[in-house]
Amino acid sequence: MPGKVLIIDDIATNRIVLKVKLAAACYQVAQASTAREGIHAARALEPDLILCSAQLPDMAPDAFLRALRTHACTASIPIVAITSHRDATRRLALLEGGADDVLVKPWEEHLLLARLRSLLRQNESALEGHLREDVTRALGMAEGRDAFDHPSRIALIAPTKEEALRWKDRLLDHMTGRIMTLSTKAVLSDMAPEAIPDAYVLFGDSAALRRRPETGPDRGPDNALHLLADLRARHETRNSAIIVVLSGENAQDRAADALDRGANDAIGQAVKPREIAVRLRRQIARKRRLDKLRADVASGLKAAVIDPLTGLYNRRYALPRLAAITSGAYSSETSPLPSARFLQNSQQTGKVPRNAPSKNKNRRDYAVMILDIDHFKLINDGFGHAAGDAVLERIGNVLREFAGPDDLAARIGGEEFLLALPDTTPQAARQKARQLCETIRETVFIAPGVKQPLQVTVSIGLALASDPHPRPHMAEPDWRGAQAMLERADQALYSAKSHGRNQVIVCTERSAA
Amino acid sequence: MPGKVLIIDDIATNRIVLKVKLAAACYQVAQASTAREGIHAARALEPDLILCSAQLPDMAPDAFLRALRTHACTASIPIVAITSHRDATRRLALLEGGADDVLVKPWEEHLLLARLRSLLRQNESALEGHLREDVTRALGMAEGRDAFDHPSRIALIAPTKEEALRWKDRLLDHMTGRIMTLSTKAVLSDMAPEAIPDAYVLFGDSAALRRRPETGPDRGPDNALHLLADLRARHETRNSAIIVVLSGENAQDRAADALDRGANDAIGQAVKPREIAVRLRRQIARKRRLDKLRADVASGLKAAVIDPLTGLYNRRYALPRLAAITSGAYSSETSPLPSARFLQNSQQTGKVPRNAPSKNKNRRDYAVMILDIDHFKLINDGFGHAAGDAVLERIGNVLREFAGPDDLAARIGGEEFLLALPDTTPQAARQKARQLCETIRETVFIAPGVKQPLQVTVSIGLALASDPHPRPHMAEPDWRGAQAMLERADQALYSAKSHGRNQVIVCTERSAA
Repeated sequence: MPGKVLIIDDIATNRIVLKVKLAAACYQVAQASTAREGIHAARALEPDLILCSAQLPDMAPDAFLRALRTHACTASIPIVAITSHRDATRRLALLEGGADDVLVKPWEEHLLLARLRSLLRQNESALEGHLREDVTRALGMAEGRDAFDHPSRIALIAPTKEEALRWKDRLLDHMTGRIMTLSTKAVLSDMAPEAIPDAYVLFGDSAALRRRPETGPDRGPDNALHLLADLRARHETRNSAIIVVLSGENAQDRAADALDRGANDAIGQAVKPREIAVRLRRQIARKRRLDKLRADVASGLKAAVIDPLTGLYNRRYALPRLAAITSGAYSSETSPLPSARFLQNSQQTGKVPRNAPSKNKNRRDYAVMILDIDHFKLINDGFGHAAGDAVLERIGNVLREFAGPDDLAARIGGEEFLLALPDTTPQAARQKARQLCETIRETVFIAPGVKQPLQVTVSIGLALASDPHPRPHMAEPDWRGAQAMLERADQALYSAKSHGRNQVIVCTERSAA
Repeated sequence: MPGKVLIIDDIATNRIVLKVKLAAACYQVAQASTAREGIHAARALEPDLILCSAQLPDMAPDAFLRALRTHACTASIPIVAITSHRDATRRLALLEGGADDVLVKPWEEHLLLARLRSLLRQNESALEGHLREDVTRALGMAEGRDAFDHPSRIALIAPTKEEALRWKDRLLDHMTGRIMTLSTKAVLSDMAPEAIPDAYVLFGDSAALRRRPETGPDRGPDNALHLLADLRARHETRNSAIIVVLSGENAQDRAADALDRGANDAIGQAVKPREIAVRLRRQIARKRRLDKLRADVASGLKAAVIDPLTGLYNRRYALPRLAAITSGAYSSETSPLPSARFLQNSQQTGKVPRNAPSKNKNRRDYAVMILDIDHFKLINDGFGHAAGDAVLERIGNVLREFAGPDDLAARIGGEEFLLALPDTTPQAARQKARQLCETIRETVFIAPGVKQPLQVTVSIGLALASDPHPRPHMAEPDWRGAQAMLERADQALYSAKSHGRNQVIVCTERSAA
């Protein structure tokens, strides 16, 4: 449970002082007294964090940092360098070399511990990401990385407009990207998703140290820490990179506070634009990695429920969905819920004819149909698998066109499809089934390597049901109901097959027709 | 971008005051003046948060809360009730009825806004969860819910041991679960994973308000806010439910601070044990929902890369993995990386004969073999698919037994398997391939519905390669190298088939043998 910290310092006293402080804060501590020993220990122990002197006798700082940063085992371990020089150029060199932060001796204990916590917390999420990356790369989504290579958008927020503009001007000497200056009000106002900054630099107002009223008739929260809390509470910016720059009274203490409140980076001392640029680049790169990862996980999950050939939902997804439909939880009233909105895009391409909603609001009629391609084996055997696949794909497209936004279209077997209508009328469902059967009969199927167009028909079993007490409330999935619907549709399908195929047979609530 | 807040209050002045405050803090505000109107607006607008008077003229508070809590559209919207009664029983009734917090008029503005931020932030993650739940339920993992139904573990941390014990005693009157009292030191020390509490209640020390040295020779951080930051920075507790209870000087202000620093709940006033119990139950339920969801997402991702029949990796996973192996990124030196540890369990069942590591440390030899079951179609056609599946499953088990912890075993086609050895010798790889071929020949295959045991053989194509400059550094996946290895193994396999099957053919770096 305790974080593992590796201390690398050639001076025994320094190591001991740090060790005592860290052990008291319940960290596990390992030590090394030279750069080489430290690199070796880092690879062997894989600590959660490295705390090192910037002046090690056996290696120059840049070579030392490079050795850690380029080795797979140590590349992503956060590094805090401790130096006795107040010199900004030296600090910058360490940051550019790969240190995550540089503390100047005598370091402020509160800030040191807050920085450690912050780095551990952030590395924690990176690690969680690392775990997933393996799988998501396996899911084949890794190629889209350059989709994130748009120029970065950076927002500067300072106590005065002039100050913000001055920083903008100075930052532009050291980095590219769209840098904008925003008022507090503008930061928290509505923004087009594509305009939302990747990173925020919040310059603290040294005159506004202690809490002031957060609001008034004409202004929003007015200092960096409040703004930080607001940004973290909002959907669009909760994963943004936020750097807080503080100066004046208690700046180091407030920087420590900012870190504990979720800033990705906080600076509590005089700082040059170039250093802000270095820190910004690092935070933006980190944010994009995590954005990419989140997108990959979403696609990975999506890939697990989509049939790759037709793009329809697969059986694994369809069955629980059907259980939700039979339970009534998926009535049109609840469909605006986020859960129902998810993954809609994959279904909603092409025109979407909506269902006629049930007229009688006191009950809900719903329907499930199973489609099976007639003599599919003949297509596969006669024209090859590629032809068979082309037919499946085309039928998938027809089905998608027939499915309304609340309907569920899925491929549930090799040549078997499902279309569920959660809110319809018996008439509308029958008509839709007949139209579907006709449309496929009239569709011209062109298959690769096959000269003449193929003639394809389907048999459809349609099960109708009625829910006399539809509940808009949340309901448990109704597995038995779903199973029963499927069985009835299956019976009807069997009946359609044995009556000569290329037709619809309907099974109403009580009796199979 | 701004959070949408619905204000429900029958007194116009109250609504206006709240609206002004919230608009100044850049929230979007909607209003309703009766309970019924409010419920209707909540369903229609789906606000991010509801701020309501606890005394609405047209409906009793419990009926009003129930109406919101039981409807799918509004069930998970955070609700803050505002009352003018300081009465603890009334507050408790509101919390038990479903309010997330109760503020007493005149409410402290800072606390109100911090509470809003906290609820928005937490609902945000619940929402993200909601989005995924749909998919993960579809992945069929929803049934395991009761795995999380162990009694909850709750840790109480108070300034003195006596105080902690007193709270424990009083809490046990109102809830079940394992309640333990912990010192700060014990909280941050190593703990067995199964002993880690679900929830922490941190009782603030009113005497330790302003910052004290965080550490000393014999103690850790000593007040609630520091402990909160530490818990959030640690792997095992970053998702724990944390409730901070503060009293004394500036308690409300500090409660607001605790919320902004990531507490799930914070109380800045005198509080009864029963209220803590209500809040604890809610936070623990929330934590378990999210734990379940995280587990589901992990299983969902895993399901996407595992072949359900054999439990081996599927083709989708195997190819990028092979590209990592040929690039050298998957040498045994880097395998202790988290990325390589992930999903190991699925491979490591049964005994795991380790590869003989390459003797010559200056180069790395690796090997890829493709196995194809001989005359598999005859098994399927002659004995049915169930028999074919049983054979595939059994061969999957054999392969798993042959795969060392760094090796990759996968099913890459209907009857085609892959075994990649990232670090081996040509001798060891040849021997392993031959043993594999022999083992399968000698295995007794029992298939369902088939009386006599089946005789099954495989043909194996083995490709050997050598990496003269192995880099332990991180490398880009080597897609071309992987493709080339597969092609060579495929050629060798073809050769094995055409030479009479049931044998191994080796393709060395330059020439096919």
